[in-house]
Amino acid sequence: MAKIRIFIETSEISIGKVVNISEKQSHYLFNVMKQKPGNSILCFNGKDGEFDCHIENINKKSCQVKVLSKTKEFESVPDLWLLFAPLKKDNTDFVIEKATELGIKKIIPTITQRAISEKVRADRFLAQAIEASEQCRRVDIPEISDAVTLENLLKTWDKNRKLYFLDETGNGRKIHQVFQNAAAPCAILVGPEGGFDEKELEFLRKLDYTEAVGMGKRILRAETAAVSAVACWQSICGDWN
Amino acid sequence: MAKIRIFIETSEISIGKVVNISEKQSHYLFNVMKQKPGNSILCFNGKDGEFDCHIENINKKSCQVKVLSKTKEFESVPDLWLLFAPLKKDNTDFVIEKATELGIKKIIPTITQRAISEKVRADRFLAQAIEASEQCRRVDIPEISDAVTLENLLKTWDKNRKLYFLDETGNGRKIHQVFQNAAAPCAILVGPEGGFDEKELEFLRKLDYTEAVGMGKRILRAETAAVSAVACWQSICGDWN
Repeated sequence: MAKIRIFIETSEISIGKVVNISEKQSHYLFNVMKQKPGNSILCFNGKDGEFDCHIENINKKSCQVKVLSKTKEFESVPDLWLLFAPLKKDNTDFVIEKATELGIKKIIPTITQRAISEKVRADRFLAQAIEASEQCRRVDIPEISDAVTLENLLKTWDKNRKLYFLDETGNGRKIHQVFQNAAAPCAILVGPEGGFDEKELEFLRKLDYTEAVGMGKRILRAETAAVSAVACWQSICGDWN
Repeated sequence: MAKIRIFIETSEISIGKVVNISEKQSHYLFNVMKQKPGNSILCFNGKDGEFDCHIENINKKSCQVKVLSKTKEFESVPDLWLLFAPLKKDNTDFVIEKATELGIKKIIPTITQRAISEKVRADRFLAQAIEASEQCRRVDIPEISDAVTLENLLKTWDKNRKLYFLDETGNGRKIHQVFQNAAAPCAILVGPEGGFDEKELEFLRKLDYTEAVGMGKRILRAETAAVSAVACWQSICGDWN
């Protein structure tokens, strides 16, 4: 059984310090995970690394842990962003979870012409990203931006960050070729179900910091395309290599 | 709006032929998709390609279509198999759907020591694979095997089919390096939540047709690992390249 591992929002973790756990997480540890004083759990705050912590006091509303030792140094994921058009709820959840596991640094919900217009709840996305970070043993948490239209996003885009967009029309270069020269910082943009519209594609193709990427002839669902592209990038340019 | 596209179980499709659609699919076309005589749909049978078909008669129980023209030649996906340990229901569904989209030729539910012992329903898996094939415009359907234990599966394994297993212990070679020389026919094996047990890993490492593959230091969920590995393979050795 792997040790319980939680993200705690605290300005600093260091050995010897006593840290207060939030009410929500205290409830989780006490009621759900049946933790008792004397047990130890792993904690990380997204900037100081991961620590083995000893539960000093615990009840359903509060918990204090004492930081015993450092178990992992802080390390950021590679500087890869994922821009994706919000999908139906389950599929969006899926993209957030998988992108976190695969080591995305920043997720930007990006509104395109054909994107689902459901309200984007960045706070819910962040909660999912935190949970996935706890699971996959990241010591950082992906940044989640508020939703932004593709047009507005690109108005202030830093041209040093290359933008790879997935092109379903068959006009993109093969992903394996493209990613041979796709060092960070960069970003991957995935359209919604139904793809980008023609004007968006035209616009994207004209920019000098973009490149169209192709992933074969089968039609991939948006979430499949997102996960696949990120995996390919990590395997070639990222921290799998 | 993309044309409706359905898989039909018929021994042969050819231009001019009239084909009977099953009761279940007639119901779907008539009641759900509101199709009428005169409409046209795309049909494929998994071996003759894809055809534009004209609805001659339709009601809630039966439907006949006339085959008008061939819209796609038959083409098989690359000879890549996916062996995966059954997961919780939703995650298994997910693996079947994504593996189909990504172009897996054969899926083998493989029982390992730590695999969930829920009954594996190959018929349900096949229904999902068919639906995903319809969506992603494959003209073939992945083969779904009955569940088999890893031990029994490897007893009769064809050694010409290299077997790449995902090794979470950090002892695998980097996936991008391994797949540089991983031409079909081959197979990818993904363990269950919790991974392979020590004995399984020892056993797998000893075989002369296997190789351990590593995908970084973050702990990937089994379904994430499966999708990611298949995407990496398609991008290097498969039909994305």
